Amino acid sequence: MDKRKILIQLDADEQASLFDRVVAVDAGAEVLFSHAGVQPEQVKDLVHGAIFTRGPKDLKSTAIFIGGSQVAAAEQLLRSALSHMIPAFGLRVSIMLDANGSNTTAAAAVRVATRHLVLQGMKCLVLGGTGPVGRRAALLLGSLGAEVRLASRDFKKAQEACKEIQPPGANARPLPFQVSNSRELLEALHGCALVISAGAPGVRLIDGASLKQSADLKLAIDLNAVPPLGIEGLEVMDKGAQREGIIYYGAIGVGELKMKTHKACIRKMFEQNDLVLDALEIFDISKTV
Amino acid sequence: MDKRKILIQLDADEQASLFDRVVAVDAGAEVLFSHAGVQPEQVKDLVHGAIFTRGPKDLKSTAIFIGGSQVAAAEQLLRSALSHMIPAFGLRVSIMLDANGSNTTAAAAVRVATRHLVLQGMKCLVLGGTGPVGRRAALLLGSLGAEVRLASRDFKKAQEACKEIQPPGANARPLPFQVSNSRELLEALHGCALVISAGAPGVRLIDGASLKQSADLKLAIDLNAVPPLGIEGLEVMDKGAQREGIIYYGAIGVGELKMKTHKACIRKMFEQNDLVLDALEIFDISKTV
Amino acid sequence: MDKRKILIQLDADEQASLFDRVVAVDAGAEVLFSHAGVQPEQVKDLVHGAIFTRGPKDLKSTAIFIGGSQVAAAEQLLRSALSHMIPAFGLRVSIMLDANGSNTTAAAAVRVATRHLVLQGMKCLVLGGTGPVGRRAALLLGSLGAEVRLASRDFKKAQEACKEIQPPGANARPLPFQVSNSRELLEALHGCALVISAGAPGVRLIDGASLKQSADLKLAIDLNAVPPLGIEGLEVMDKGAQREGIIYYGAIGVGELKMKTHKACIRKMFEQNDLVLDALEIFDISKTV
Repeated sequence: MDKRKILIQLDADEQASLFDRVVAVDAGAEVLFSHAGVQPEQVKDLVHGAIFTRGPKDLKSTAIFIGGSQVAAAEQLLRSALSHMIPAFGLRVSIMLDANGSNTTAAAAVRVATRHLVLQGMKCLVLGGTGPVGRRAALLLGSLGAEVRLASRDFKKAQEACKEIQPPGANARPLPFQVSNSRELLEALHGCALVISAGAPGVRLIDGASLKQSADLKLAIDLNAVPPLGIEGLEVMDKGAQREGIIYYGAIGVGELKMKTHKACIRKMFEQNDLVLDALEIFDISKTV
Repeated sequence: MDKRKILIQLDADEQASLFDRVVAVDAGAEVLFSHAGVQPEQVKDLVHGAIFTRGPKDLKSTAIFIGGSQVAAAEQLLRSALSHMIPAFGLRVSIMLDANGSNTTAAAAVRVATRHLVLQGMKCLVLGGTGPVGRRAALLLGSLGAEVRLASRDFKKAQEACKEIQPPGANARPLPFQVSNSRELLEALHGCALVISAGAPGVRLIDGASLKQSADLKLAIDLNAVPPLGIEGLEVMDKGAQREGIIYYGAIGVGELKMKTHKACIRKMFEQNDLVLDALEIFDISKTV
Repeated sequence: MDKRKILIQLDADEQASLFDRVVAVDAGAEVLFSHAGVQPEQVKDLVHGAIFTRGPKDLKSTAIFIGGSQVAAAEQLLRSALSHMIPAFGLRVSIMLDANGSNTTAAAAVRVATRHLVLQGMKCLVLGGTGPVGRRAALLLGSLGAEVRLASRDFKKAQEACKEIQPPGANARPLPFQVSNSRELLEALHGCALVISAGAPGVRLIDGASLKQSADLKLAIDLNAVPPLGIEGLEVMDKGAQREGIIYYGAIGVGELKMKTHKACIRKMFEQNDLVLDALEIFDISKTV
């Protein structure tokens, strides 16, 4: 008899994300074990509980999902979890990181862009680029050969983020830009065909006038669902809407693909026991949905 | 494929009520997500997790149960949860409050009374009336047109409780009574056909002598299962037992109907996504079991 | 319709043991309610939630598993849980203690021994005998009529442990031994056919030279899986391997029987509602797998 599919949810928040719980069930996890308030030092026992309870052949029916609202804490849990697997003996389970939806959101945004643009060699701007979604979007765009500009109000933060982002096979890292006023915004947008707005909820990053002056812009994607949206003139439900030569996607317009990607990743984990699904792997899966 | 029926249990206690967990499963919840130690400020994310994960058509397969031992805290969670639903877009799920069994207990007690008495215009006394069950019993009796007397050892508390209870369609609110001795008890019982004893566990509220002197009393219901019971001469298993002209129901005698009501409410929540099951709605459902 | 099989996991640790969770599911628990950080004063409500929600005939579909890493805390939870059952009214559920795997590990080790030796009247040494596994192994060996020697580096601790161990039907309690050097080890091993090493992970208790000088030794079982193992020359995977006249079992060699015993116990609990599975009962069940 096949083992029941167990998804182990590790979450650093005090309450395990209910969003992640519902999606896990809808993606086909038959049993969900949610652990909230997880500290890095607790991960060893949890991982051992995952890998020492079923034979190696059955370990594809156990998987770990690391979520919650705190992305840095989740990344620490991921590193810790990986360090306690024992791959030499086949004692590992597939694992996915999607704290705050950062990986699935970035993957869906970039996947949407590939439907309209050939990104190889193309100039792209990521606003709010130092946040979890922005960093991942920049990484994915870079992996596709785009010339990525990563913008922040704070140039130093942009620089630091760019240093940490290493797109595989890309010739260059993202370029840091400071964008704290309209003039800097126009400079950053200059020559760009794509802009992804990945700033904080409820913060406007692009005004309508700047958009009009950006002659090369073909596609604008905003991942902020809380008014005011990140891009003036864009609607949260936009899903390929064209206005004055620009194609728009709002947060909800990207949301369906994000959700499908999330579910596809969970299903994928139950096919083999050696997956590590972070930004690049999740982007690959987003292409299949 | 139909979505699995997910019940979300919100509980302010450190351990989620196991009573509520077992009943949820036996009532047909296919998946139970229990959240313990829930603080009001955590409710927003939880509600958003409930309403943003499934399409509006599927939201009837997600529901929220608010329980636990702390009734006031649970009422606060209910208010918070309702404030974060988005009914204008159909983004809501059904929700039920039954902290400490207060709603299902009060509903079952009053439902039992309607099997023996026509409550319209009838004088009824609720002892321990300022507690969660007492207040709800008074509300339900008032909604049926009874002349409700709400008694407490402390008159001020009785007065305050009466002010907060607003039976729909009733001409009058409950009347506050102080009952701190036998004389006051007899005054409060005078003319009453029904008494519901809803005091603390293990506290006697009516002695046998007072019962005998209450000529109009036809039905006595005690909701206290811990000896000494609230009403002298009554047995915890009494379920319509008649002795010297009075019909008796003890806590266990009422319990079966309470449990059936609880389960019927949970089943009902999975039929539509816009129910708010508090005292009056739960009483309505108790009539159907 | 049969009630779903609910296993209630009580765990004093901050995160409920994931090991116990997975095994519970694989053993056939249809619903698992995990309670972490359980304090003794919380047990009453939990037990009442277990016994007051289903009729006595259905209570065999509810069971309690007490696990976690803290054996003393778990034993306290067990005592508390038993005190809140109401057997006179059939209001009880089956309950099992296996904190840190202590009972199933000891049972599997002694069961393995019975396959090779007749233990009645036989001298047996338990090293690390004051720990949870060592105490239980000594109890089980004693119940089979063995002459048990319980060793610790600290003689007083060994004495105290021996006082607390009361094998049923045995003529004598275990004898305390101090083993803090090779000479004391040889004395303790003198005449013994069996040694069980139940010390802390990563601590060597028997060196190869002492083994060779123990002419009567026929079977050596080590329950420590972390190098250095407890017995020099033994391998963690040993499962009946013979070398120079001694049969060896390592921790993983015993592990399969331990796991089968664990699962059999959980299945057994769902057959009746009055089981209390502690060391002796779990050993009995280990004979059936």
